[in-house]
Amino acid sequence: MQKFLGALLICTAIIPLQAQQVLSPDKNISLTFAILENGVPSYKVSYKQKDVIKSSALGLETKDVPSFLVGFSVKDVKQSSVDNTWSPIYGEQKSIRNQYNELVVTLEQKALKGRFIKIHFRVFNDGVGFRYEFPKQDELKYFIIKEEKTEFNLAGDHKIFWIPGDYDTNEYAYTTSKISEIPSLMAQATIPVHAQSPIASPSVQTPSMMKSADGLYINIHEAALINYPAMALNVDAVNYKMSAHLCPDGVGNKGYMQTDAVTPWRTVIVSDKAADILTSKTILNLNEPTAYEDVSWIKPVKYVGVWWEYFVTGKSTWAYSNENNVRIGQDFSLLKPSGHHGATTENVKKYIDFASSNGFDAVLVEGWNVGWEDWFGNWKEEVFDFVTPYPDFDAKGLQQYAAAKGVKIIMHHETSGSATNYERRLDKAFQFMADHGYNAAKTGYVGKIIPRGEHHDSQWMVNHYIHVAKTAAAYKIMINSHEAVRPTGLCRTYPNWFAQESARGTEFEAMGGLAPEHTTILPFTRMMGGPMDYTPGIFQTDLSAYGRGDRVKTTLVKQLAYYVTMYSPLQMAADLPENYNRFPDAFQFIKDVAIDWDETYILEAEPGDYITTARKAKGKEAWFVGGVTDENSRTANINFSFLPATKKYVATVYADAKDASWNLKPQAYTVTKLIVTNKSILKQFVAPGGGVAISVKEATTDEIKKLKKL
Amino acid sequence: MQKFLGALLICTAIIPLQAQQVLSPDKNISLTFAILENGVPSYKVSYKQKDVIKSSALGLETKDVPSFLVGFSVKDVKQSSVDNTWSPIYGEQKSIRNQYNELVVTLEQKALKGRFIKIHFRVFNDGVGFRYEFPKQDELKYFIIKEEKTEFNLAGDHKIFWIPGDYDTNEYAYTTSKISEIPSLMAQATIPVHAQSPIASPSVQTPSMMKSADGLYINIHEAALINYPAMALNVDAVNYKMSAHLCPDGVGNKGYMQTDAVTPWRTVIVSDKAADILTSKTILNLNEPTAYEDVSWIKPVKYVGVWWEYFVTGKSTWAYSNENNVRIGQDFSLLKPSGHHGATTENVKKYIDFASSNGFDAVLVEGWNVGWEDWFGNWKEEVFDFVTPYPDFDAKGLQQYAAAKGVKIIMHHETSGSATNYERRLDKAFQFMADHGYNAAKTGYVGKIIPRGEHHDSQWMVNHYIHVAKTAAAYKIMINSHEAVRPTGLCRTYPNWFAQESARGTEFEAMGGLAPEHTTILPFTRMMGGPMDYTPGIFQTDLSAYGRGDRVKTTLVKQLAYYVTMYSPLQMAADLPENYNRFPDAFQFIKDVAIDWDETYILEAEPGDYITTARKAKGKEAWFVGGVTDENSRTANINFSFLPATKKYVATVYADAKDASWNLKPQAYTVTKLIVTNKSILKQFVAPGGGVAISVKEATTDEIKKLKKL
Repeated sequence: MQKFLGALLICTAIIPLQAQQVLSPDKNISLTFAILENGVPSYKVSYKQKDVIKSSALGLETKDVPSFLVGFSVKDVKQSSVDNTWSPIYGEQKSIRNQYNELVVTLEQKALKGRFIKIHFRVFNDGVGFRYEFPKQDELKYFIIKEEKTEFNLAGDHKIFWIPGDYDTNEYAYTTSKISEIPSLMAQATIPVHAQSPIASPSVQTPSMMKSADGLYINIHEAALINYPAMALNVDAVNYKMSAHLCPDGVGNKGYMQTDAVTPWRTVIVSDKAADILTSKTILNLNEPTAYEDVSWIKPVKYVGVWWEYFVTGKSTWAYSNENNVRIGQDFSLLKPSGHHGATTENVKKYIDFASSNGFDAVLVEGWNVGWEDWFGNWKEEVFDFVTPYPDFDAKGLQQYAAAKGVKIIMHHETSGSATNYERRLDKAFQFMADHGYNAAKTGYVGKIIPRGEHHDSQWMVNHYIHVAKTAAAYKIMINSHEAVRPTGLCRTYPNWFAQESARGTEFEAMGGLAPEHTTILPFTRMMGGPMDYTPGIFQTDLSAYGRGDRVKTTLVKQLAYYVTMYSPLQMAADLPENYNRFPDAFQFIKDVAIDWDETYILEAEPGDYITTARKAKGKEAWFVGGVTDENSRTANINFSFLPATKKYVATVYADAKDASWNLKPQAYTVTKLIVTNKSILKQFVAPGGGVAISVKEATTDEIKKLKKL
Repeated sequence: MQKFLGALLICTAIIPLQAQQVLSPDKNISLTFAILENGVPSYKVSYKQKDVIKSSALGLETKDVPSFLVGFSVKDVKQSSVDNTWSPIYGEQKSIRNQYNELVVTLEQKALKGRFIKIHFRVFNDGVGFRYEFPKQDELKYFIIKEEKTEFNLAGDHKIFWIPGDYDTNEYAYTTSKISEIPSLMAQATIPVHAQSPIASPSVQTPSMMKSADGLYINIHEAALINYPAMALNVDAVNYKMSAHLCPDGVGNKGYMQTDAVTPWRTVIVSDKAADILTSKTILNLNEPTAYEDVSWIKPVKYVGVWWEYFVTGKSTWAYSNENNVRIGQDFSLLKPSGHHGATTENVKKYIDFASSNGFDAVLVEGWNVGWEDWFGNWKEEVFDFVTPYPDFDAKGLQQYAAAKGVKIIMHHETSGSATNYERRLDKAFQFMADHGYNAAKTGYVGKIIPRGEHHDSQWMVNHYIHVAKTAAAYKIMINSHEAVRPTGLCRTYPNWFAQESARGTEFEAMGGLAPEHTTILPFTRMMGGPMDYTPGIFQTDLSAYGRGDRVKTTLVKQLAYYVTMYSPLQMAADLPENYNRFPDAFQFIKDVAIDWDETYILEAEPGDYITTARKAKGKEAWFVGGVTDENSRTANINFSFLPATKKYVATVYADAKDASWNLKPQAYTVTKLIVTNKSILKQFVAPGGGVAISVKEATTDEIKKLKKL
């Protein structure tokens, strides 16, 4: 590497602008920009002298103007340094340091009347971000992108945690393999998912998590995906080279650009410690500060919902009747009720009572509005109107009932993928919410997208989600989107878009299952982009209780651990109230656990194997620890050094019993109180598919006397 | 024919339901339905024993369910007769008789669990309409149409007045040829038009006007185009067979259907008199009565506008500045004004003054709102926001100025084809209009459609236009759509959608020109579907007055005649005020002419050659006559027998001077007053490219004394 840099320096003596190097503030990461033969821009990245991204081309292929691929020369370079700190509205830590060295290269294509672009590189201690900028200029106003040609030329046949590249879904199970194995594993990895559009050539979704043979953890994703299609990665499994693959629209175009324009940031997070990947704030730092003046109404939410019963009990349904050919606008009270409708006034009241008794903020109600009888699979545009309750759902009465008990109802806006219909009705839908006291909506995009030909990940839909978030903000409504494009840190800019699904979540425990390792991978992949509404908290994991053959592949305690390991400002207790009532001691953890944090500590982590995380509650002297493992039991190493030095604390440890496991005794657990200090280290057994959850608070004198010291 | 029917009767003795005949009330038209070999449904139509449509297949090809093409047998038939009369809100006559014999055939496909459809045939005295119905049934809920396979098997190589089949535009010049000549003439007929998508195989748009060698006038179109793509006609030029060609969406599908569903009516208007084609009300009769309870706010409008100056003077522009890379949301007051902006407060006041002085209802203002700097050609989604005036347009002040003078301003909503952007902003746009006292909007769809992949004529856009009309109705706003799908009589159901362009209108006189025959064809083609905003009234036809090389290819008088020959409840006086001020005697006709009618009389007509029309003003003892010719001079035969018998009338005759012609002396005209009665016949010279216009009112005793009698 030093040799290469030497050569580069000689080179720059002749064409001084054509190659540029920028180091991270801690000097561990080096990014080098260079113009290759034919005027192709390129970059490479190393970490502690190890290649992360080998020389890789940059550029875009266009349709209607000459491409941004060759013939470039450097017109100008600027380097600068930034070091500041900002406070997120909610998050894993109360303040975030934004420290990087920046290189902005202005590149001109002299043969094209000096047409120019800029590439911005930001080098943080834990990774790099770069983006293309197309400044306003006489010779460049509008253009259509055929493909972005950004390459990520990896240094070896890394281990990779991946799901298939797809224009419409991220709801695949993860495959762990070598890069070289991806093509041969693609068919089996491409399991059936509704409305899927797998990319024809071998490719993977981002965030793409890799581990090199020499111990580097590398994560490739993007930040600030605005007015641009989402990026998957083409996989050249022979040369270990990845390259951008943008999601097309219905006519095959990939982006409609007007100068001044920028692409999203392409991010490469790298470290020799897996924990650094999880604590990286580079993606958030690359997003713009919030676009809203008033954010006082944006609050984290812990909730229950009329939801899991639809998946497991077989007794309740979203739909009101068994009819399967309905239209909004018809009188649904004339339909014969099936007797199985879940979102009845009575049932919702039960959940409101439960939420109120147990300190939850809100109750999600799915199936409240007309149209569920034939909502899916017909590429139908006007499935829902978002304002008409079923005859047995008393919107006004429930509003009053919930308000009297200090509980909010969370609106559900399933679009069935029909974004045009939703946009057309958006203001009326949000006005209905405002009129009825709702302040958060779960949106859904299950199905093929309308406008037909667009995809969940295409530029038009990317703009749609943001349009929904911004419109919601005008009504002070928070949005939790399901089946939308994977997040890219936009919760910083549009903080009311506070959670997303965009991955295989808990619902799949009842629709084919999730591997025990799944949740040791998600924080390294999907969750790099932003909070996930994973909907944890399933206590009745053996679904044979409902007469089903399958089971949730975790212990009960692992479900508790998720509230800490899977960060989100929106956390559900997804199981049925009656199941929580059967395990009040374990349920206490869900009631206690914070959903907003001052500090986060990744105590140990290895993608695909385990994660143990500790967090300090926002503004409180309370800490919570969560640890999860894959299908293998292990001993978690929980070092309490994150606690303040002077005091003694009570740790309430929710642990798998010795004989527990996800498939045999998932509900075998212990709850133990111990006195700990910041010198304590807990070696904690974790069962196969199990976890550990700990709440920590200052000990009383009485507790210090009575409780065992760790 | 009798022989055939005899054979049919024998046939029906064996399979009695498999063939059915229905006659028009006057028995001139016969429609026969029959099941052909393989269970293919078919129909044929004759007029006074002459074949109009020879045996032609019916059916639809589908994608996801078995097609509706073969294997049909007749399950049930119903015949009935209807004869009633209704009053349109506005129109060519105060009451319309709806008289037809109906045949409804229920067809089942026994091999498909008895799946069934219905075909409705209505036989009027002047033509037939038929449509497919897909009733609700267990085995048929949703389906996607690949193509409608309705055939129109013509009896000969008719003369046809046609424009190329196209998914996005009707703004072609007409070609007159034999059917057999269509393929060889297609290339030259497909002249450049913005955002055109000519159909690859030989095809023509509807309304398609034909004349047979044996003297039949035949018009094929459709009625009540709702939730379905528009139909063009494939042309088999060897067998003179036409067949439906529906407009596809971005993924190639042609229609998304949910039972109970109907297609639009397919219409065949036929007569041995050309005038009967023009007076046919079959298309209106096939549309549903108005969907609105209150229609009191829907009124015909005669207007002027800041419009023609954009096309001819070279001095004013829609755009405020010469910048050509702007975005809504930016501060347009920071742009450098070009000094040529047309929609300035001052200029609009000039038009308001003119409108007020001359009895016009309204002033159209184009170019009032930000975004025109780069509005076209970039497939850009957010071109306009419809609520932000340019800095030099005082929306509030002009509202007050116009209101004080009893004049309305007509809003302009150019969408640039970006229907998604318009829908998203529709309520705010109409609210802005309501807040500022506007009650009519001219909408525009110049450009490639967004949702990208959709077309002006595809099902999604068909629904869009209706969505706009219905939403506008909620704000009591009338809509005049330009570049939308061609009309199909929906002005009956949605009467606030009171005019459309959807053809090559006056603007093309300044963009390549219109042949003198153009307006002798339009009433037989485009205008069969509904009123056209043709924007007549150009007095300064020689555009060299503006330093241009081209000219409007009519005499001045022909422009007057258009107010009668081209029916619309929305009529513009399109020329500049100063041109009207130069010809006050001729302008008097435009000021006088009615725009709503009790009765209409087609005095003589031949498509491509001439039309002479008389109409009685709505609720008034006032008549207006308009006559137009093509490039040939002629003598119009104006029989005043439409006048009441007992009285004497003054006819003010606006006539081409003897030496007038469109290309030499277009402004040479005479204005003569004559006494006429219902026995009078005027043989009136009409110049090449010329016309005649007459206003008729009861004569005073003084006038009877002084004026010459015809």
